[in-house]
Amino acid sequence: MIDWKNLDKLAAYDKFLALKGRVNLAEAMSGENGAVRVAKYSVPMACGMKYNFAAKAVDDDVLSVLADLAKEQQLIAKYQELLDGAMVNTGEKRLVLHQLCRGQLGKDVLADGVNKRDFYVSQQNKVAAFANKVHAGEITNADGEKFTTVVQIGIGGSDLGPRAVYIALENWARQNDTLKMEARFISNVDPDDAAAVLKSVDIPHSLFIVVSKSGTTLETLTNESFVRNALREAGVDPSKHMLAVTSETSPMASSTDYLAAFFMDDYIGGRYSASSCVGGAVLSLAFGPDIFARFLNGAAETDKASLNPDIMQNAALLDALIGVYERNVLGYMCTAVLPYSQALSRFPAHLQQLDMESNGKTVNRFGEPVSYLTGPVLFGEPGTNGQHSFYQLLHQGANIVPMQFIGFKNSQIGMDIDIQGSTSQKKLCANVVAQIMAFACGKEDEDPNKAFAGSRPSSIIIADQLNPESLGALLAHFENKVMFQGFLWNVNSFDQEGVQLGKLLAKRVLAHETDGGLKALADLFEI
Amino acid sequence: MIDWKNLDKLAAYDKFLALKGRVNLAEAMSGENGAVRVAKYSVPMACGMKYNFAAKAVDDDVLSVLADLAKEQQLIAKYQELLDGAMVNTGEKRLVLHQLCRGQLGKDVLADGVNKRDFYVSQQNKVAAFANKVHAGEITNADGEKFTTVVQIGIGGSDLGPRAVYIALENWARQNDTLKMEARFISNVDPDDAAAVLKSVDIPHSLFIVVSKSGTTLETLTNESFVRNALREAGVDPSKHMLAVTSETSPMASSTDYLAAFFMDDYIGGRYSASSCVGGAVLSLAFGPDIFARFLNGAAETDKASLNPDIMQNAALLDALIGVYERNVLGYMCTAVLPYSQALSRFPAHLQQLDMESNGKTVNRFGEPVSYLTGPVLFGEPGTNGQHSFYQLLHQGANIVPMQFIGFKNSQIGMDIDIQGSTSQKKLCANVVAQIMAFACGKEDEDPNKAFAGSRPSSIIIADQLNPESLGALLAHFENKVMFQGFLWNVNSFDQEGVQLGKLLAKRVLAHETDGGLKALADLFEI
Repeated sequence: MIDWKNLDKLAAYDKFLALKGRVNLAEAMSGENGAVRVAKYSVPMACGMKYNFAAKAVDDDVLSVLADLAKEQQLIAKYQELLDGAMVNTGEKRLVLHQLCRGQLGKDVLADGVNKRDFYVSQQNKVAAFANKVHAGEITNADGEKFTTVVQIGIGGSDLGPRAVYIALENWARQNDTLKMEARFISNVDPDDAAAVLKSVDIPHSLFIVVSKSGTTLETLTNESFVRNALREAGVDPSKHMLAVTSETSPMASSTDYLAAFFMDDYIGGRYSASSCVGGAVLSLAFGPDIFARFLNGAAETDKASLNPDIMQNAALLDALIGVYERNVLGYMCTAVLPYSQALSRFPAHLQQLDMESNGKTVNRFGEPVSYLTGPVLFGEPGTNGQHSFYQLLHQGANIVPMQFIGFKNSQIGMDIDIQGSTSQKKLCANVVAQIMAFACGKEDEDPNKAFAGSRPSSIIIADQLNPESLGALLAHFENKVMFQGFLWNVNSFDQEGVQLGKLLAKRVLAHETDGGLKALADLFEI
Repeated sequence: MIDWKNLDKLAAYDKFLALKGRVNLAEAMSGENGAVRVAKYSVPMACGMKYNFAAKAVDDDVLSVLADLAKEQQLIAKYQELLDGAMVNTGEKRLVLHQLCRGQLGKDVLADGVNKRDFYVSQQNKVAAFANKVHAGEITNADGEKFTTVVQIGIGGSDLGPRAVYIALENWARQNDTLKMEARFISNVDPDDAAAVLKSVDIPHSLFIVVSKSGTTLETLTNESFVRNALREAGVDPSKHMLAVTSETSPMASSTDYLAAFFMDDYIGGRYSASSCVGGAVLSLAFGPDIFARFLNGAAETDKASLNPDIMQNAALLDALIGVYERNVLGYMCTAVLPYSQALSRFPAHLQQLDMESNGKTVNRFGEPVSYLTGPVLFGEPGTNGQHSFYQLLHQGANIVPMQFIGFKNSQIGMDIDIQGSTSQKKLCANVVAQIMAFACGKEDEDPNKAFAGSRPSSIIIADQLNPESLGALLAHFENKVMFQGFLWNVNSFDQEGVQLGKLLAKRVLAHETDGGLKALADLFEI
């Protein structure tokens, strides 16, 4: 029997709070004990990856309390409920089915009169068939020429996830001769965004995917019109160049303005939609459907591993628990995500949405205010770049920022050079492990300006290479981590009421229905 | 007489702390009083820009205490000292002269046996003459063909600032027929970064600028070798395609491996170096020296405005004071920078380095620990994109995150479309003003899930258009803000000892001189 409870109503809550100050991380990671921790505090992940948390401020006793918390808060049972099709998105009264795009781990889910797994697979197949025809030159432009570029028009979850995935795999795909089409993205209502992308692409050889679940997103509809206009000016029939990804009930679904339409539904929120057609259409066109399928397989492997009730065998679960411990026991406000891979340059921006939009809330799933801290601020940039930038504050600043490193043993392109006895890839890896220890142990110095207090906690996910499987596994890891944290905090991680008020006021400004400060501010912009 | 004092030693400190809870922002901005505040709380900036702080939690009494603080901490006098060539970077015993690249606002500064203003101008002239010859086809590749692309190889300050500026002006320059060469950037030691850039450029028609003040930066020297290797493999003589930006004392300065060398010095830190040759070489090659000069003029205008002792006439000063008030009185940990301009997509990443590396410190300029909070975590993404992402947490999350909006009345490219009675640019502007009010005033609702508490403070900088002058003015605004905050906290904003330990440990890993946790972590990567 599932019991949706606030974190502070759990029996284990008091001993959870009592963990504060228990572990001296700098001490724990010093000397040979550091090596023992690195060996011991490692959790296997999907696709041969590892989650190592030796440099987190935990010990066996902390882990034991976290395990109790996980059990009492029924985290695995709640995840299973979600997989089985429970209405976990209580605010919007919706099921939560993004994992179902990747595999069947629970009961058959029947909704809208269909088996939802069949529905998602059917849409994937439809996308795959379409993409294959485009790649084979069976679907062409009016002159019978092949399409070379695909442009995604979407914002938020219709942009950040698919864009991050595309950037993460673009070089890998080029290297493995599977880059079928280049992808570009238009998101911002800033007209310079659409204008710049349109100027940079070969319009007669470009396909445009309009992504909006409701078919009513202001930015996306505006940019769609913007693009249609440009296509007409270029002498191109928009309906032969534009695709729709939308829900079956949206006005876009049955429109003849599109060459094809692929469907999503209300059970997959924007920020969780990279596995649906929202990611599937652009990524299958860019890389081929087989590569997108491999990406889903990696995610599916994580989803399965996330069902393991043993926190030492379930990285997403443990990562979630440690994050809540850092937030509610240790009081840290931020999390930095630091991938040591240039290809993951936009992955932190996707995780920023995923995490902050899911758990940046102060009411529980029943709409009651909670009295503890919830989701952190998340930010990040790739290493080693960040080392020459904001790491100064992470090392010596006034507040402690827990870190989540990601590293790969091998590069994607494989072009490398040996300088002073090591390749660039080895230098990259040496830097990430050096940072973990520098943050954990610090360094004494007579000059306080050159001293490092240490005890700055981090974890690292290690994989062989960033490829479709490991990227899918990585994405699902963070999705599931955020889901488990939502369960811990008892918030609804699947709605986003906080975005509504701004939309409403923007409409008023455009309709000139304003007064007071809003009118005065609008006047500054001469709106 | 300048007195370098800790913030908590100021006579005004107690009344400063007593400001906590004084202003109810939601109330203050509601109704007609909001309009009064918008009109009143506005500070003129360089290049016709405005800094509006109506939606900050201040009132006239708060401003009066902030003015006292500014006066007692001698902020303007300290800035003048810096301009006059005082050794303000006490840790490294160096002058701080980035403003001198943009104009002469103090005494003549003599150092290294020369007048430093003359030195910076001479380097700018050398860059300009070189760039003009490249653009005129007087300096060409071995086949006498014009160079079309310039690639900057640098990291940290040699990358983030110049890259952000390039991206900010690329479309503007294209639109104004002044994009002379496309620019690309290689920064990360990740070999995939250099490999991907090299694969994307036409090597025989590319110039590469190696930027390293010391001539010893690991990433940059590694990437330089990486690129030289690729050039040789492409049958190109690297010494005819590579430029150096370095200090006169570095090993790179007198090397014959470069087609030309341009000089910087120790008095301009990486994160403040966009105005020096570090930005000057790549930006003059990309846009032409005239455009770079206009960028410097905008910055110079801000520098001059920043000397005004009246906080209502000095936006950088007031912005700094409000930031310290939010950090030390209100206790906020983060700042979000939210430009409503896609062209500023990488500007927050530059500001992240500028701010966090400058003031992310817990010792004062004499190396003594301070007992108050210092620099915040800074992050940001362009609006409206962020609205569909992390704004959920900003509106309804557990912690308050002060915001810094930036908006422009006009777009850069000017290509726009009227849909439902408004252009995209109007929609963009309507959104930013709507957000300011939504954050400030919130909204009541019987359903707490749909309620907004409000009192989430923000300011906005408003400009006509993002162009070379306004961008220079904007950059200098933030540089000077960070400088004033450093003065307030009495930290040295110009060194970065926090980056050293990681470098040291990375060297040990590569030399296999490790034990304990460091060895165990290195083993995970098979280093």
